[in-house]
Amino acid sequence: MQVAMIQEKIVPVEELEPIYLDRGIYFGDGVYEVVRSYNGKIFALEEHLQRFANSLAAIGITAVDINQIRQRVQKAFDAAGIANAKIYFHITRGSALREHTYDPDLKPNFFLTVTEQTDDTEEKNKGIAVSTHPDWRWKRCDIKSLNLLANVLARQDATRKGCAEAILVDEAGLITEGSHSAFFAIFGQTLQTAPLTANILPSITRIFVIKAGKNIGLEVLEKSLTHQQAASADELFIAVTTEDIVPVVRFDDRIIGNGKPGKYTKLLIQEFRQFTI
Amino acid sequence: MQVAMIQEKIVPVEELEPIYLDRGIYFGDGVYEVVRSYNGKIFALEEHLQRFANSLAAIGITAVDINQIRQRVQKAFDAAGIANAKIYFHITRGSALREHTYDPDLKPNFFLTVTEQTDDTEEKNKGIAVSTHPDWRWKRCDIKSLNLLANVLARQDATRKGCAEAILVDEAGLITEGSHSAFFAIFGQTLQTAPLTANILPSITRIFVIKAGKNIGLEVLEKSLTHQQAASADELFIAVTTEDIVPVVRFDDRIIGNGKPGKYTKLLIQEFRQFTI
Repeated sequence: MQVAMIQEKIVPVEELEPIYLDRGIYFGDGVYEVVRSYNGKIFALEEHLQRFANSLAAIGITAVDINQIRQRVQKAFDAAGIANAKIYFHITRGSALREHTYDPDLKPNFFLTVTEQTDDTEEKNKGIAVSTHPDWRWKRCDIKSLNLLANVLARQDATRKGCAEAILVDEAGLITEGSHSAFFAIFGQTLQTAPLTANILPSITRIFVIKAGKNIGLEVLEKSLTHQQAASADELFIAVTTEDIVPVVRFDDRIIGNGKPGKYTKLLIQEFRQFTI
Repeated sequence: MQVAMIQEKIVPVEELEPIYLDRGIYFGDGVYEVVRSYNGKIFALEEHLQRFANSLAAIGITAVDINQIRQRVQKAFDAAGIANAKIYFHITRGSALREHTYDPDLKPNFFLTVTEQTDDTEEKNKGIAVSTHPDWRWKRCDIKSLNLLANVLARQDATRKGCAEAILVDEAGLITEGSHSAFFAIFGQTLQTAPLTANILPSITRIFVIKAGKNIGLEVLEKSLTHQQAASADELFIAVTTEDIVPVVRFDDRIIGNGKPGKYTKLLIQEFRQFTI
């Protein structure tokens, strides 16, 4: 008899709930999105759904109707009734006895949560400290997949160091992005961030930050930064769906600017707010 | 109210089964092992448990008693009563609302299955075809983690090409290992395989293959192979817990040797068998 064991408990394999055979847990064989709402309105849902479709296509999960996903997101958001919500959702390839190869007809599994967005006023006002960590991630970071252990280990390292985010540095010494955010520097009136390659996520927030930057008259330079360059920037910040723009005031052991959120970063935060109302 | 959605169904977050909040599915934040039994006896369990302990330590999951894991494996194996069984088990960091950072006191989740080992007689007798794929995996392949999407994509590509395994090639053009196996070549009386680095798994089967190689008088060379070198080998094979040694008779479009399992590979299979009885 084929058996499974959950903690101490033995269960016949055929009586297992499908979630225990989810390829998401066996292989991280799935993709996800995080969207948020501002004051009762979901921000940039279409952009996130488009990226979700791209991620699904990149790993060959085909039987997903994006219209249905949109409806589910809206339905769950409405049911929760949270004005400033964080909406997480993933799709995995489906449930089956563990084997690397898969049946292309497997039925995908959908999972979503709507939770309270934590208040980020203090982080925005005071800025955060970040630390660097080697970028151990895979070579397809353009896919928003469930393979996030490298991100977790980097982020936990930052937490141990009293920092709010880990900035990832590749083997060539170039900064790719944060463990869960895009990374930006300002030199004079130039806004700089890494170019879109397979090494970073095509961040939705990045699109709006670049737009905001242009709106306030900054030049935009899509070019990777070295550790040394970032440490000598006039201003630094991270950009992430859940908190949009968060100023960085310490980078490893270097204080950035005067240790307070920079002038342009504050302008960008204001400009970004216009997109969300 | 914080809500979750499973497929179409809305559930309050607090009513979710913990498995839905498993960090294994959110992040692949866990490690695993596969052991097998030959004729009612589990092979090399201690070596696998030691590697499991190493993987757990590498990702900072600390509250695991390996003696308890050994007992659970044995208990489940006994309950299944399968002579030639494949035993899979993993431990994830635990269940919590999704957040990269974790509470170090989280209670780990254990899951195991004991299933029938599929018969590999034909693969062993006829040999298999393999195809190559870029190695997209992360930089800590020495940790046997649940982040396996790169392996899945490579393996599925091989399946589409009618091949039984994908051999992974890094950016420098060197072969690291298979998507779920170690990779070996024989040139004359030399048995060659990649050295143990962070780029490959410290395969248990590899240890026994090297021992078997020495027993039958082969020189052992731990040095990475290029695609071209592998294609011109006298013999090739993969080594994996579930099937020990499987001859490779086609490597991309190149027939290896005379298209049948090689002389030394067959000797190695015989020699390996001695370890398992």
